[in-house]
Amino acid sequence: MKRIAVLGSTGSIGTQALEVAAAHPDRFRVVALAAHHNDRLLAEQLDRFRPALAVLADGEAADRLRGHYRGPAKIMAGEEGLIAAATLAEADTVLTSLVGFAGLRPTLAAIEAGKNIALANKETLVAAGELVTAAARRRGVAILPVDSEHSAILQCLQGEGRAGVRRLILTASGGPFRERAKETLPRVTVSECLKHPNWSMGRKITVDSATLANKGLEVIEARWLFDMDYDAIDVVVHPQSIIHSMVEFVDGSVMAQLGRPDMRLPIQYAFSFPDRWPADFARLDFTALSALTFAPPDTDRFPALAMGYEAGRRGGTAPCVFNAANEAAVNAFLSGEITFTAITASVRRALDAHADVASPTLADLCAADEWARAFVARIIPELK
Amino acid sequence: MKRIAVLGSTGSIGTQALEVAAAHPDRFRVVALAAHHNDRLLAEQLDRFRPALAVLADGEAADRLRGHYRGPAKIMAGEEGLIAAATLAEADTVLTSLVGFAGLRPTLAAIEAGKNIALANKETLVAAGELVTAAARRRGVAILPVDSEHSAILQCLQGEGRAGVRRLILTASGGPFRERAKETLPRVTVSECLKHPNWSMGRKITVDSATLANKGLEVIEARWLFDMDYDAIDVVVHPQSIIHSMVEFVDGSVMAQLGRPDMRLPIQYAFSFPDRWPADFARLDFTALSALTFAPPDTDRFPALAMGYEAGRRGGTAPCVFNAANEAAVNAFLSGEITFTAITASVRRALDAHADVASPTLADLCAADEWARAFVARIIPELK
Repeated sequence: MKRIAVLGSTGSIGTQALEVAAAHPDRFRVVALAAHHNDRLLAEQLDRFRPALAVLADGEAADRLRGHYRGPAKIMAGEEGLIAAATLAEADTVLTSLVGFAGLRPTLAAIEAGKNIALANKETLVAAGELVTAAARRRGVAILPVDSEHSAILQCLQGEGRAGVRRLILTASGGPFRERAKETLPRVTVSECLKHPNWSMGRKITVDSATLANKGLEVIEARWLFDMDYDAIDVVVHPQSIIHSMVEFVDGSVMAQLGRPDMRLPIQYAFSFPDRWPADFARLDFTALSALTFAPPDTDRFPALAMGYEAGRRGGTAPCVFNAANEAAVNAFLSGEITFTAITASVRRALDAHADVASPTLADLCAADEWARAFVARIIPELK
Repeated sequence: MKRIAVLGSTGSIGTQALEVAAAHPDRFRVVALAAHHNDRLLAEQLDRFRPALAVLADGEAADRLRGHYRGPAKIMAGEEGLIAAATLAEADTVLTSLVGFAGLRPTLAAIEAGKNIALANKETLVAAGELVTAAARRRGVAILPVDSEHSAILQCLQGEGRAGVRRLILTASGGPFRERAKETLPRVTVSECLKHPNWSMGRKITVDSATLANKGLEVIEARWLFDMDYDAIDVVVHPQSIIHSMVEFVDGSVMAQLGRPDMRLPIQYAFSFPDRWPADFARLDFTALSALTFAPPDTDRFPALAMGYEAGRRGGTAPCVFNAANEAAVNAFLSGEITFTAITASVRRALDAHADVASPTLADLCAADEWARAFVARIIPELK
């Protein structure tokens, strides 16, 4: 029986995680639910899963919840509430599916409290990989990826010795603009951008998939999850999103994990690992499958991936700045303030302007995060 | 250090196995080499690998070898020699790459002598799967597949629990006549047949790939190697031969093993298992790879696959008859006695005429094997 706290329960990953939990009532008990502001959906989830603790990070939303919720769960608000959910004594595993840098403190708190982590908040590892993985080692807790790519790699590495691994191969759909001419990219609209060809996901990650910044974040995430050098992490574009990622071994053999694009599978695997639990997710039908194709990523039209490698190799606070500048710029794009191509232009300028701090503390990371957001806010008028 | 005896050292698998051994002089010692009749090549191999024992199954060839070989190896002939090589005290692992039913007795002798088996002689498991796997269990020896498909499945199963497996998915290239019109198949020539699109292999297995009998043999082999029901073994045509086979798990996840078509990889894995050893075999270049496609097997034009399932499900001596009738018919085709389509027609008639013996002994299997060969010889005049 897994006793889980879900941070980000009303988002795309959170709701699908609760579907997985509902399909295995004998394997899961939901002990805490935390979300940002969606009090109506959280109230429904509280009625269904009956956890002891409910959290809304947004204080006004927490007040609204207190106004209409009549169940037994204790209601908390703010980061204090998120950290209470992340460290709840009754939980053994915390699913961190908060969006962005906001997931860092609660994830660190959960690790310090000895909880295993099902990690859907990749920004945590990107911004603070060294800090987070060192804490996990010290506390002896597992960090299991929920990202489909990293889940695929975890599956490919099952039963294999570390010495046998030659490289990780992350697949990338290439996003909705994979075949779009470079000169038309500045005119991409938000609604075009939110139509991902294969995956139905949250808004931020969908934009990141279109710029390939998401793949840059994933390269850094892979470096920390699997303790690999950047030289041993490759990216290949695979538009059909059927092969979720691969591992090449020293004998030339390549293991791949395939499946329909359905996040419930990697979510469930993060809980069932190293076992597998029966599920009725849609199965791959090879006789109906279209051709699987591969291509190198286009770093000319989509420079964010190369910036991810650059930030990762620079290390220190650079990945944190890469992440924060990207997050701020994506928000500016989603609210109509800047163009699509200005997202990566912002990240480029932030990386160029930033003075890296080596071996950063949590305070250094928070400062770098704030600096990058303020930097992007400052340059937005120039980018319009 | 693996001390290996190679049965079938001058054939396609045997010579590639010796390449693998030569590439890892610190990991291998070759203690016995056995072949059918190629005394010249065997003499070269003896000079290079210096085993204690050399065997030629063909007595005249053994006499020729005695005439020109001047080294220290003891020379033996016939089945007696093969069994001496298979049971040699100095060997810990026997690679059985003899062609056809002739591999059965030496393989059984090796198992009884407590040797681990690297199995390239699939006919052994097809004809006598129950007998062979029972002996291996009793003696506590491993049977590790050298077939690329079964090696792929072994790799996909690494680190996975048995309860998590839903089905095995064997891939098939579809052979050189995958797109050929049915009415032209009787006119297929031997030389057309020996041009396999992806793999360079021995003559018998290349013809079997063209009829899809090879995939029928592999289905039965998989049933015994992995102890799976026939209902949980599927075949999908994948003309590029890049995905060598797959396993679907109960959560819907599919693991696949990919590589360039190079038999040295599965040969090496049968020795390195569960580890991996560095090798400079050609690597997969995903950016240069053509599209990977999949299709259901065409059982109308290529009925041998369905006959393999049928024989496997009937059990007893039926798989042995499937194998023997096919082997006899392929030989008749290769020597120009019957047409390409008469191969499977022969197998069909043999399966129909055979009275199955349940739980067969080795004597029952030898009798069934002889019966099937005689039966095919008898009907050849009718098939011309």
